[in-house]
Amino acid sequence: MDQAELPEIAHAHVAFDDGLTLECGLALRRLTVAYRTYGRLNADRSNAVLVCHALTGDQYVAEQHPLTGKPGWWEMVVGPGLPIDTDRFFVVCANVLGGCMGSTGPRSPRDDMDQPNPPRWGTDFPPVTIRDMVRAQKRLIEHLGITRLFAVIGGSMGGMQVLEWAASYPDAVFAAVPIATAANHSAQNIAFNEVGRQAIFADPDWLGGTYWAHGRVPARGLAVARMIAHITYLSEQALTRKFGRRLRGAQAAGSFDDTFEVESYLRHQGSSFVRRFDAASYLTITRATDWFDLAADHGGDLSAAFRGTRTRFCLISFSSDWLYPTAESRTIARALNRAAANVSFVEIATDKGHDAFLLDEPDFHRTLAGFLAGCAEHAGLPA
Amino acid sequence: MDQAELPEIAHAHVAFDDGLTLECGLALRRLTVAYRTYGRLNADRSNAVLVCHALTGDQYVAEQHPLTGKPGWWEMVVGPGLPIDTDRFFVVCANVLGGCMGSTGPRSPRDDMDQPNPPRWGTDFPPVTIRDMVRAQKRLIEHLGITRLFAVIGGSMGGMQVLEWAASYPDAVFAAVPIATAANHSAQNIAFNEVGRQAIFADPDWLGGTYWAHGRVPARGLAVARMIAHITYLSEQALTRKFGRRLRGAQAAGSFDDTFEVESYLRHQGSSFVRRFDAASYLTITRATDWFDLAADHGGDLSAAFRGTRTRFCLISFSSDWLYPTAESRTIARALNRAAANVSFVEIATDKGHDAFLLDEPDFHRTLAGFLAGCAEHAGLPA
Repeated sequence: MDQAELPEIAHAHVAFDDGLTLECGLALRRLTVAYRTYGRLNADRSNAVLVCHALTGDQYVAEQHPLTGKPGWWEMVVGPGLPIDTDRFFVVCANVLGGCMGSTGPRSPRDDMDQPNPPRWGTDFPPVTIRDMVRAQKRLIEHLGITRLFAVIGGSMGGMQVLEWAASYPDAVFAAVPIATAANHSAQNIAFNEVGRQAIFADPDWLGGTYWAHGRVPARGLAVARMIAHITYLSEQALTRKFGRRLRGAQAAGSFDDTFEVESYLRHQGSSFVRRFDAASYLTITRATDWFDLAADHGGDLSAAFRGTRTRFCLISFSSDWLYPTAESRTIARALNRAAANVSFVEIATDKGHDAFLLDEPDFHRTLAGFLAGCAEHAGLPA
Repeated sequence: MDQAELPEIAHAHVAFDDGLTLECGLALRRLTVAYRTYGRLNADRSNAVLVCHALTGDQYVAEQHPLTGKPGWWEMVVGPGLPIDTDRFFVVCANVLGGCMGSTGPRSPRDDMDQPNPPRWGTDFPPVTIRDMVRAQKRLIEHLGITRLFAVIGGSMGGMQVLEWAASYPDAVFAAVPIATAANHSAQNIAFNEVGRQAIFADPDWLGGTYWAHGRVPARGLAVARMIAHITYLSEQALTRKFGRRLRGAQAAGSFDDTFEVESYLRHQGSSFVRRFDAASYLTITRATDWFDLAADHGGDLSAAFRGTRTRFCLISFSSDWLYPTAESRTIARALNRAAANVSFVEIATDKGHDAFLLDEPDFHRTLAGFLAGCAEHAGLPA
């Protein structure tokens, strides 16, 4: 397996020299937010759509990825004439705080040392929360001269950010689309994340978190973490449909090679992931998702997070998603109802599991396009 | 983590000097089967019940475990007056071929070298199948002078052995109870097993499988494998009920310590497992379960495996088991129906997941006791 460090890339970004004080109380002296935009901001700055990426996503939503060379992760959704129509909307996506694609995170040089070439933060990077990620995005949005977002949209951990945006900055969010997400992690979600973290810690190249200093990468542990997570992104039906019990070739029974096609697929998922993602960021960001608990942040009452909101919500879940099952979206919908919010809730029937929000799901795309069109009309956006 | 090798224990066993030729074509020159018995074999040898253990179980069914000091894994089921009543039945359980509790497996000395102190097999141990395991058990049963088993009973991988017994030796099995099992592994089951294997391979102490020769144990990788598997043994509801999002103490958000109770629990599951189980056995046995495919062994028709059978079957599944869901038992029941077999099928309503077959489930225990009592009457066993 390739043990090379992630290449250094010059990502488009903005730097805030006044930094950011985190929820944990620690202050980053300098905050960098790497981001990409698509489409054009209109004259009254009313057509901005913030897309929030998932755990291992990034800001390269609708263009070739600079590391992998692959298409952007939401090219089916964001673009001219697509559900998030870049002929109409100005789309912004920022790499999350704690990430590894240009925003401040464990790979950034420490800013708490007065020396010319400080080491990287590594595992000393302060813990960040979903709220911290959203506060960093807010800084970017203000920097772009945008007071109110037409919409905030995201799936999975991106959906948590959408919920946090709506709760923290209700007047800045006209419409919110939390997709395949939850207001907190179940014990099972925490458990899967924890096993992934333990796999990273068990890698000999983890070196107690000092791997960068030794030119190493805990690639095998990170790959195992990705493989575990990847299973949870799919459904049993999707795995059966894609692979079943098909063998790769006429190999002998009992070999520990990847004799089943599903094994080969998983190994590929693991090894390609480590070429684009950093282990310390994986730890930092999974922790943020485990700690996210919007009800707990509002006195144990999820509806209190949305009291008085005028944001229009569209909750979308997928019937075969067992990582963030429909019941989680239903919990959010009920809380929004208790807060007398404007909310629609759609469960998309699919056997593709959690990953459906990234795949070709015409019903999902129609739902998203329809909701945004209706909101644009209410907001008085030119057609 | 304790890196010590498993202690050597003198397990009760029988050795067959004529060995066993495996399905893969390789021949073990010597076969050892370690086993335990409970109750007494009656005069006409008609009251024997073979219990088949699961992936990480062993022959210590109803007595203190010699390594952990804990009670036997089925003390709630096997004993005087219990569903498998040792006042009535003679219960036998053998450590599976490929295991690490005394039966021939990767820890055994190689028998293909003519030297006084041969090394252990390690990863050179030949691949074994569920059918090989059953053939080794058959040798033990013959050695005990038993021609026909009153019943063969087992859960999970133990249930696969029950199915294989009924298919391979129909005249030797009066009653069969496959519990929480499947006639083959789904792609998702293979995927979870594969990630566990990759975690073991990623451990620096794995040493390409030569860890014994260096006095090492791939304890962290094996612990991660166990943690992954353990999540699949429970249900989301069970995890939520047991742990929810409860914290262990007033630790700071974002720490990578085990701040959630569910994390602490999983870590404990991982670290205690490595003190009683061997990594090479884990690989060998998980592979056997992935390869098991009773329909494929019978021309693609599962019912052909049971054609003409006179065995009485009782299939038991658990409603919240997502590792071997009820649909898998239903597939077996349909095949048995097509073979005109005598079959009853019970789904036990529980939120405890796959592990329910090891837990205090009164409905399950009543079902098992009732089925065995009915069969005993038909078999003419003295009450």
